[in-house]
Amino acid sequence: MRLRLDLAYDGTGFHGWARQQDLRTVQGEVEKALDTVLRREGTALTVAGRTDTGVHARGQVAHVDVGEEELREAGRRSDDPPVTALVRRLNGVLDTDVRLRRITVAPEGFDARFSAIWRRYAYRIADSAAVTDPLDRGQVVSWPRVLDLPTMNRAGAQLLGEQDFAAFCKKREGATTIRSLIDLRWDRDAYGVAVARVRADAFCHHMVRSLMGCLVAIGEGRRNPRWAADVLLGATRDPTVTVMPAHGLTLEEVGYPAESELGARARESRAVRTLTPPR
Amino acid sequence: MRLRLDLAYDGTGFHGWARQQDLRTVQGEVEKALDTVLRREGTALTVAGRTDTGVHARGQVAHVDVGEEELREAGRRSDDPPVTALVRRLNGVLDTDVRLRRITVAPEGFDARFSAIWRRYAYRIADSAAVTDPLDRGQVVSWPRVLDLPTMNRAGAQLLGEQDFAAFCKKREGATTIRSLIDLRWDRDAYGVAVARVRADAFCHHMVRSLMGCLVAIGEGRRNPRWAADVLLGATRDPTVTVMPAHGLTLEEVGYPAESELGARARESRAVRTLTPPR
Repeated sequence: MRLRLDLAYDGTGFHGWARQQDLRTVQGEVEKALDTVLRREGTALTVAGRTDTGVHARGQVAHVDVGEEELREAGRRSDDPPVTALVRRLNGVLDTDVRLRRITVAPEGFDARFSAIWRRYAYRIADSAAVTDPLDRGQVVSWPRVLDLPTMNRAGAQLLGEQDFAAFCKKREGATTIRSLIDLRWDRDAYGVAVARVRADAFCHHMVRSLMGCLVAIGEGRRNPRWAADVLLGATRDPTVTVMPAHGLTLEEVGYPAESELGARARESRAVRTLTPPR
Repeated sequence: MRLRLDLAYDGTGFHGWARQQDLRTVQGEVEKALDTVLRREGTALTVAGRTDTGVHARGQVAHVDVGEEELREAGRRSDDPPVTALVRRLNGVLDTDVRLRRITVAPEGFDARFSAIWRRYAYRIADSAAVTDPLDRGQVVSWPRVLDLPTMNRAGAQLLGEQDFAAFCKKREGATTIRSLIDLRWDRDAYGVAVARVRADAFCHHMVRSLMGCLVAIGEGRRNPRWAADVLLGATRDPTVTVMPAHGLTLEEVGYPAESELGARARESRAVRTLTPPR
């Protein structure tokens, strides 16, 4: 049987999601915890959004395949359902910078990576002393100049839709850089912090942070609002676009289709994007 | 002239607000920064809410008296108003766990401590894995059992008004423990975290965290809802009330009267509470 894992982490202390020899990664820590709690070896997780070093997640989704007997054993000494007991036992083993929030038995055809129809990220910037909160400094970038969000939104609107985002992506041989950008919008939260909501079917490497760098240059007046569309048309990685710091970025949510469409969606995205793991 | 300082800090790395020899405190750090930037010695801040070790603040208010010449000098090489330049220079000197958010020339009669008419704190608890966010673990207490907020609110309502809160206070010789509790209410935020809003004219030492401990015992069913009122009537420090952890507590806001009433208010509270610094 397949389990869906919903998890959250503070990316500060991790070398990103993907397992690496001798480096602390989210995948490495969670797989090790599953090995411990399920008394097995070599657990392999599949994830919706592989995040880079320092990037956070509030709504990350992964899946793992387990035997019914393993799961029953994990919840043996508990009155709770086995998946609830498993959440508690994993959180007991993991450090507090990564938390399992929910584990559910996945529906037929579910694949955390290939069934996903979109990924939503947030990017947070405190652009004046008045809105800077030291309690959130690990997840909000402090910026020395005030940003003009309406202008950034006008510029960003030109990037929406299915486009070749090569100009905003770190190049990978043989991988397509065509993506569908669904939302790209800045607003201020209740405290006045500038928050971008960025949603696409998937993202190529460094794409969100490069989009943010482009719009910030426009928002502080260093660049003309038309520059975003010009960069996009350039169609190769533009070195004048700054990749914004990792710690402002959080994977907030992953969208999946209704149960009946899970299998079809997985076959479809596997065909299109096998060579480009979502970032 | 008197400056009003609005500031915020992550209490994790501080031994509380109050200056102490050889220990890192918020007052000590901010006074040192003012000494540096204003090129003076022995700056003395007056604060609205002295916070304990590990307690955070988003809306702390302090005041400092400066000479017009000192202030002008601090903003000399800037096009901004002197108070704006001072904010930037202080934040440049301070570590990122404490931030000046705003400095204003205080109105006549303003005293950060004695003019204040109320202090508002928040206490935050994540009472299930589903609402636990590792990004906020420095300011939200993780609790292993789900809390019944409506019951806690019914119990808390019995504590409102002017009362002797001795049962919830760490004893100080000669100090009154009579306080007016204006708000005491639990709600869930957008993520499902339980947040108490606690507002009073002032608080005695450990009062918020003891109130929280009392209500949490009721909210998880260990105590009867009437217990809160029983403890209050006991009128001496009750050792069966748990003082909740410091890191869940944040000073959110300090209230001041209209300008015309500042002086009168300061005279009034100085008379009542000279021996009991607000906590």
